[in-house]
Amino acid sequence: MTALDRTDPEAEIAKAAQAYSNWGRWGADDVLGTVNFLTADKRVEAARLVRRGVSFSLSQRFDTDGPQKGWRRRTNPVHTMTDTGTDAALGNQGFPHGIGGADDVIAMPLQCSTQWDGLGHIFDRGLAWNGRAAEKTVTSDGDLVTGIEHLAPHITGRGVLLDVGRVFGDPGLGDGHGELPDGFAITEEHLTATAAAHGVTVGRGDLVVVRTGQYARTRREGWGDYAGGDAPGLSFTTAGWLHRSEIAAIATDTWGFEVRPNEFDVPAFQPLHQVVIPNIGLLVGEMWNPEELAADCAADGVYEFLLTAAPLPITGAVGSPVNPIAVK
Amino acid sequence: MTALDRTDPEAEIAKAAQAYSNWGRWGADDVLGTVNFLTADKRVEAARLVRRGVSFSLSQRFDTDGPQKGWRRRTNPVHTMTDTGTDAALGNQGFPHGIGGADDVIAMPLQCSTQWDGLGHIFDRGLAWNGRAAEKTVTSDGDLVTGIEHLAPHITGRGVLLDVGRVFGDPGLGDGHGELPDGFAITEEHLTATAAAHGVTVGRGDLVVVRTGQYARTRREGWGDYAGGDAPGLSFTTAGWLHRSEIAAIATDTWGFEVRPNEFDVPAFQPLHQVVIPNIGLLVGEMWNPEELAADCAADGVYEFLLTAAPLPITGAVGSPVNPIAVK
Amino acid sequence: MTALDRTDPEAEIAKAAQAYSNWGRWGADDVLGTVNFLTADKRVEAARLVRRGVSFSLSQRFDTDGPQKGWRRRTNPVHTMTDTGTDAALGNQGFPHGIGGADDVIAMPLQCSTQWDGLGHIFDRGLAWNGRAAEKTVTSDGDLVTGIEHLAPHITGRGVLLDVGRVFGDPGLGDGHGELPDGFAITEEHLTATAAAHGVTVGRGDLVVVRTGQYARTRREGWGDYAGGDAPGLSFTTAGWLHRSEIAAIATDTWGFEVRPNEFDVPAFQPLHQVVIPNIGLLVGEMWNPEELAADCAADGVYEFLLTAAPLPITGAVGSPVNPIAVK
Amino acid sequence: MTALDRTDPEAEIAKAAQAYSNWGRWGADDVLGTVNFLTADKRVEAARLVRRGVSFSLSQRFDTDGPQKGWRRRTNPVHTMTDTGTDAALGNQGFPHGIGGADDVIAMPLQCSTQWDGLGHIFDRGLAWNGRAAEKTVTSDGDLVTGIEHLAPHITGRGVLLDVGRVFGDPGLGDGHGELPDGFAITEEHLTATAAAHGVTVGRGDLVVVRTGQYARTRREGWGDYAGGDAPGLSFTTAGWLHRSEIAAIATDTWGFEVRPNEFDVPAFQPLHQVVIPNIGLLVGEMWNPEELAADCAADGVYEFLLTAAPLPITGAVGSPVNPIAVK
Repeated sequence: MTALDRTDPEAEIAKAAQAYSNWGRWGADDVLGTVNFLTADKRVEAARLVRRGVSFSLSQRFDTDGPQKGWRRRTNPVHTMTDTGTDAALGNQGFPHGIGGADDVIAMPLQCSTQWDGLGHIFDRGLAWNGRAAEKTVTSDGDLVTGIEHLAPHITGRGVLLDVGRVFGDPGLGDGHGELPDGFAITEEHLTATAAAHGVTVGRGDLVVVRTGQYARTRREGWGDYAGGDAPGLSFTTAGWLHRSEIAAIATDTWGFEVRPNEFDVPAFQPLHQVVIPNIGLLVGEMWNPEELAADCAADGVYEFLLTAAPLPITGAVGSPVNPIAVK
Repeated sequence: MTALDRTDPEAEIAKAAQAYSNWGRWGADDVLGTVNFLTADKRVEAARLVRRGVSFSLSQRFDTDGPQKGWRRRTNPVHTMTDTGTDAALGNQGFPHGIGGADDVIAMPLQCSTQWDGLGHIFDRGLAWNGRAAEKTVTSDGDLVTGIEHLAPHITGRGVLLDVGRVFGDPGLGDGHGELPDGFAITEEHLTATAAAHGVTVGRGDLVVVRTGQYARTRREGWGDYAGGDAPGLSFTTAGWLHRSEIAAIATDTWGFEVRPNEFDVPAFQPLHQVVIPNIGLLVGEMWNPEELAADCAADGVYEFLLTAAPLPITGAVGSPVNPIAVK
Repeated sequence: MTALDRTDPEAEIAKAAQAYSNWGRWGADDVLGTVNFLTADKRVEAARLVRRGVSFSLSQRFDTDGPQKGWRRRTNPVHTMTDTGTDAALGNQGFPHGIGGADDVIAMPLQCSTQWDGLGHIFDRGLAWNGRAAEKTVTSDGDLVTGIEHLAPHITGRGVLLDVGRVFGDPGLGDGHGELPDGFAITEEHLTATAAAHGVTVGRGDLVVVRTGQYARTRREGWGDYAGGDAPGLSFTTAGWLHRSEIAAIATDTWGFEVRPNEFDVPAFQPLHQVVIPNIGLLVGEMWNPEELAADCAADGVYEFLLTAAPLPITGAVGSPVNPIAVK
Repeated sequence: MTALDRTDPEAEIAKAAQAYSNWGRWGADDVLGTVNFLTADKRVEAARLVRRGVSFSLSQRFDTDGPQKGWRRRTNPVHTMTDTGTDAALGNQGFPHGIGGADDVIAMPLQCSTQWDGLGHIFDRGLAWNGRAAEKTVTSDGDLVTGIEHLAPHITGRGVLLDVGRVFGDPGLGDGHGELPDGFAITEEHLTATAAAHGVTVGRGDLVVVRTGQYARTRREGWGDYAGGDAPGLSFTTAGWLHRSEIAAIATDTWGFEVRPNEFDVPAFQPLHQVVIPNIGLLVGEMWNPEELAADCAADGVYEFLLTAAPLPITGAVGSPVNPIAVK
């Protein structure tokens, strides 16, 4: 890897996009991107990782205590009841034989909390995944080609936790499991060294979860200006590794996956996204909560597991809330 | 099982509620109900069922082509875009270096499509699961005690498909896999005979999926007046089996789980719900789509699998959309 | 008016668009269209029409009993409570000194019920009002130029009810006030004759309300397939009158303002809209409820009044719900 | 007025509630409260106030730049497009003969911006307006008795602006029109003196708009922590005047109508609301924007006008967004 030219994001992005493009790799009609790496045999291997039968949710709770502040109309979820137990108790519901019920409704951005970014979420110079014209891919009717519904049956396989916060962070923070500071750029070297420290290798078809410890910080200090604010995250320079490793997906415990502020000295916005989603076709998760899983991995030293992270098959969605389940 | 008195739902419900109550079985503070049956060792066994690594989504697509007609303010999901590829292509977004993005928002009832009913969804004579007062359990702030978020890490285990539609239905319908008519009440005998025909046994901690074939019918004929209309489903008389079998959860491919119209000759509304959710503490799924899984099971004769059906941990929700994933 | 060529909507629309265009009439920056005709002196005249002080709402109720069936993601309003009196009565709210509260939330399409269409609602061959490029006017961020907020202070002036249903409809229907059948095309002659029968003239700056009686029919028979279904409404041939009369706005008691099915023999969709909104710059209202006002006008023979129909100033909206108030 | 006992909100509220109750004044079935004072003859007088024909909107814009911060699930409005001009321009819509369209959707709390509080919005010790049991009035199905839809035709009458910010505030602030500081409690004396300074009297059936200048401050400084934060507003001691004056409604340019922090030394929450809404039956408006109107009134010295402030008739709503229109 030659050094990053911090003054020219456009050129760096173009160079990385060209170097790491997977366009056409799975045919002109592909709608899965790197999820193609997650094959049936990988799932068989992943299921063998289940030894103790303990399971962990890697999801934040979906409620008003979330990171959203309204930017780009992203609010926290608004959950309201259409029927309640108070109504049932007071006899307001009009049902026979003593049955009562509660129902509810939600309004939320699909990117408001623990989520997958769909392949139609980011464009590079007018082009979506596989080189498709953005304007023919995602219209006001949603993603007509690579909607998240296409991923419905696929995202179950081998999960690997890379707890970079534990290996490289302040060990006194992060709920005792380590925590990286804002602006910490996680490089390929950090990822590789973390895997080595954990005794795992990362390879084709894996679902990689990167823990920075920032989520623990938000639980301790509140969200503050978190949404879109500074955060640890992946360095722009990891694009090559993300391509070469042939992982199926990667998720972090931060708002935006990549380091913020980013590594360019001129105005730039989520430059790593621009390379990995439309060009590599990589499935990216954000705002995951790996805390309980990380504590368990630290305790038993096992950092690989069966991971199922099924998006809601919302037709045409460019993202989906998800409750990932890890089983060890 | 003595015969059902079809003229007295109130008495029948009270009798079944008393006979099959699990209140207190897992302590006064329990928030999981029958999901307690799904223990770590069951998950280890379930993971061993993964042999071919093929995976299936058991979810309907979440879009406007769903069953909801507005009853009790239940609409189909309304998915809208806050940014699109057309905007990106036309340079409307104001981002640097050629990055473009698409974002989206959803508004939907949590019970609008493939879902889990939370334990706070149904009350029996003013009482919720474990004998709690309904009005202290589910208020306008949601389910304060048994919100669906408590289930977040748990719902992964052994799934069993009981394709009653295939065994007892019209074999020429149901997309060639059999289909029960509306009003068909599935009894314990049907369930047992179906399991026997499939060569599976159903036991403690299992996640049971019952296929009636009705979903195939809606794909063929459209929803029509489906929402709350007539449907095949479980007989009220299965309450004893649902309790005795110690299954962790059960889901059907219909709107309402139980047979509609129900088996009482006087006005009654979802009487089986009133027994199984607040009294047995049973996790119930509705509007699942077992079609692809059922075709595969018919082909290879294997009706058991690893099933992960993780609800979104929406704080205080009495239900959740879900994308269940079966792996064989 | 030469006869309509029923085989060529494209040519007829193009001809009418050219003949009746108001582009540039109020300058290149105009955002008001025909609302410019509603000047301060017209408001002074309108206020003088208030003689008895009686007031009428011309709005339907906003609830689930509305005309929407889900087409183009248009649902009826979904109104939910975030706090209720049942919660207050049961002491669930945690407020001091006995205060209790109720709050609520709504999710609805802005075109779901009684409404104004904004100037950005319809385009003619890629162009919006005043000849602006559609793609630079209305993006995913809303109408950046002619958003409905620009109309906020303006829509109060002289209202005129043209009860065409009463004059030309079946007098036994329409709640006793007359009712036009579906497909009835209201022509300039009908409008002129109705005004003459009422003893009113229609002129510059007026806010015209056309009653067909269809709303009374929906109250009697339910909505059925109303949304986008057949309806009485304005003939395509009224475009000239709508331009020449220099009215500020026009509203009907139907879903779509113009007659449905329309008057072309080949597939066409809301052709009159395509002429009047982007080319004339006419403010169009739909799904108004003139029933109580019409009964009063029939009783006292006075068909003019002060009309205030203030849209919600939702920034960038292309339409708005409205509760029009007529005072006589 | 005896001095307020600042240590005992409960007693003060109870005393004021008893002293100023209008329960039963308009019969047991009343659903209008003080709006009953706004009679037809008052509307005739109000219409005579229209001299110049100039009109003003007293509404804030409904968008993400509003005061809500998520407290009690109150977000700013979320407005999204279901069709846009970019889609139309790119030929994505599938309509014939060159017609294109834009549509939109909104999700918002009914109390998020310029609004009316319905009579069911506040309860006093378990009782709603006219002494009704809160739990029988407002359930999860909304306000079953005093829903805002009942006000649909009524709210048009004589408006009076009391620009307290101008008369008693810092003249250099408030956009040059004066501005009261946070925590400034507006008393009856302030109201009376302001009316005298303006040369108006306030009386039965009037719609009173009180300007504090705080809205101008938020335009200058941003909302900051405005929602529920400190603000100028009406003193608890104005309850008697609000009752005695027999006004139909009152609105302010602040989040919460009454002064914040309130005038009690022990924890209290919106104590004036608890008196005026359920006991007086007073219609209260909040977050109005009187800036343009106030500038005009200051210029011509005329502080009375025709005011139409029509709530959306959302069935069962306990509040409504509103775009009030003043005509002078």
